Amino acid sequence: MLKKIFLRTLIACAIILTGQLAYCQAPRGFGRSPQVNPDKTVIFRFNAPNATDVKLSVQSEKAPVQMVKDARGSWSATIGPVKPDIYPYNFIVDGVQVMDPGNMYYFPNERFKGSILDVRGDSSLIHSMRDVPHGTVTYELYPSAEGTTGTVLVYTPPEYDKNPKQKYPVFYLIGGTTDTEETWFKVGKANLILDNLMAEGKAKPMIIVMPYGNIEARIAEQKGGLKPADPAGRESAEALARSKTFERDLVDNLIPYVEKNYRVIANNENRAIGGFSRGGGQTLRVGFGNMDKFAWICCYSAYLTNTELERDFKNVVENPKLTNQKLKLLWVSVGNEDFLYKQTTEFIDYLKAKNINHKTLISTGGHTWMNTKLYLANTAPLLFK
Amino acid sequence: MLKKIFLRTLIACAIILTGQLAYCQAPRGFGRSPQVNPDKTVIFRFNAPNATDVKLSVQSEKAPVQMVKDARGSWSATIGPVKPDIYPYNFIVDGVQVMDPGNMYYFPNERFKGSILDVRGDSSLIHSMRDVPHGTVTYELYPSAEGTTGTVLVYTPPEYDKNPKQKYPVFYLIGGTTDTEETWFKVGKANLILDNLMAEGKAKPMIIVMPYGNIEARIAEQKGGLKPADPAGRESAEALARSKTFERDLVDNLIPYVEKNYRVIANNENRAIGGFSRGGGQTLRVGFGNMDKFAWICCYSAYLTNTELERDFKNVVENPKLTNQKLKLLWVSVGNEDFLYKQTTEFIDYLKAKNINHKTLISTGGHTWMNTKLYLANTAPLLFK
Repeated sequence: MLKKIFLRTLIACAIILTGQLAYCQAPRGFGRSPQVNPDKTVIFRFNAPNATDVKLSVQSEKAPVQMVKDARGSWSATIGPVKPDIYPYNFIVDGVQVMDPGNMYYFPNERFKGSILDVRGDSSLIHSMRDVPHGTVTYELYPSAEGTTGTVLVYTPPEYDKNPKQKYPVFYLIGGTTDTEETWFKVGKANLILDNLMAEGKAKPMIIVMPYGNIEARIAEQKGGLKPADPAGRESAEALARSKTFERDLVDNLIPYVEKNYRVIANNENRAIGGFSRGGGQTLRVGFGNMDKFAWICCYSAYLTNTELERDFKNVVENPKLTNQKLKLLWVSVGNEDFLYKQTTEFIDYLKAKNINHKTLISTGGHTWMNTKLYLANTAPLLFK
Repeated sequence: MLKKIFLRTLIACAIILTGQLAYCQAPRGFGRSPQVNPDKTVIFRFNAPNATDVKLSVQSEKAPVQMVKDARGSWSATIGPVKPDIYPYNFIVDGVQVMDPGNMYYFPNERFKGSILDVRGDSSLIHSMRDVPHGTVTYELYPSAEGTTGTVLVYTPPEYDKNPKQKYPVFYLIGGTTDTEETWFKVGKANLILDNLMAEGKAKPMIIVMPYGNIEARIAEQKGGLKPADPAGRESAEALARSKTFERDLVDNLIPYVEKNYRVIANNENRAIGGFSRGGGQTLRVGFGNMDKFAWICCYSAYLTNTELERDFKNVVENPKLTNQKLKLLWVSVGNEDFLYKQTTEFIDYLKAKNINHKTLISTGGHTWMNTKLYLANTAPLLFK
């Protein structure tokens, strides 16, 4: 049997030889990592005969897991039973981050390279692929800042093409620092969560627009410059300037593009904005700065400081009655182990003290996409009602 | 300056700490690799202080390029000047394939992990993003084989939404072994090539459907089994059986789904099929087996043997007059350094000997996506005319 597998692998390697480059790993079965067992334990395998240390870094575990090398140079580790969910992971091979070659599902990101572990539940989870009508996700190119071409993903609900006269509300949904326009789709499973909520009658049919949050990087890339480093801190002048670039692109370029190309109800009561981490900060800044455009604001694992609120959003905090009239929802959620937990709960306390209406969800866990999915699943049912 | 970068990186690391996991590399500027210089030389950089050997494997070069380590543990290599094109690459770190953490563009694949180097030309290339009307690419989920949910990408031309009564021809376009449904989009740039050809008036407006070629793997994944290893050889019983599974899914599930959900002209003269490598074999088998459905067949870097043709497609080869009546185009292309060059040219010779009409393009180079883009750019203008 082993001989057969080895022969097959040799042949497979020969088949995918490009003439210039051998894009194949040493003998190992395709799809053998990660292996999710019926008891929800998970085996990870990685072939690296020359490595001296391989660790597994997976967001279901509090710390990296040491992997063990066998006589053939294959490293493995078993974890769990793992709570059903989707977890980013990678291997740390002598200090270098490596995606799992056995796994075709990756974490779209500007920088780190992660794979996706999907541990299914005994019953279906809210992000599971169910036998329900599915919406679609479309890659659009739109005219963006400084003459560049922007990239954005647009989810339309299952019924969209069946009701050619119907117009829909729109939820603008932004990823975090280093995420791309694909992260809400491929890791956040925004499309499947909405498919499932709509099938259960829990969410109103809506369009979800997923922009790329790092406009400066796109401009640099398309104009041939070096991508700028991250701003030094969430409240620095540079961070604020970049948030403003994002806001201008969203308001001046993306929203008009979406409203020209999709059947949308183009008013504040049918426009929501939400985001995770840096995208949560962008959400608060864009939302508070444009309450005439957004009546629904969903902030996931992020906050604004009192200083910034009182400096830049005086109208929001000093006239709570008007703010409460304009906003149909101001949502703030964070995990109790999130590294932004303290600042986010201080932000919530400030909203309370100022009598600004808001809803909150304090979950367990950290600054993760497991929590981000949870927050989307809890907020989407509230929107546009 | 260095101190400032280091401080910024430290802060950036702190920002993206997940509480459980630090998803950050050691100090290095974002977007510094690959660095394409004005003279078309390219600098690659990779930080790995603990590695003893790092090579660059890039498809613009015939062999891996040794990288050199500096005092801070950062490896680098400079190549070129490089002919403008898009090239897959990765780093080989002590024998382990690693994507470039500085680059957010990846090669979608079941197995190997590659990044994408884009060397722009002084004048625009056929796959370049130009200031022309853009089509969109939509992720669809469709009811596929054995009760599974299939994944497919659908390109619609720029004018599609502007002409709500117009119907379009459809080109089914398949990737190679280990490719996914995304590879023609993200590496093959099928959408940009067609945008540009249409803007120049060189290609007819068409829809392009990009399926996933490995139906058995999807079934195994969704039903919880192990993904099957590759078949032993391109003409083995197993390879033929898998090609048949693909054919049945395409004909019985995918085509009806597309024709139900898009405005298409549903007849053989408005249906083309094409593919690269394993997808080229699937193209020939599905095309020759269903000439009532496909009048246009585009085979890129692939072939069928005389044995198979005379056993399974007797009607095609023994009645060339009827075949020539049915097929508007039979295209075969291959590179002169392709590892399938000999078999593919033998296939072309066989078609000649049998008086079966065909067009060919023998290019330079190997079994690469650089060539695959070239073949698409040369065949799309011929279709549906």
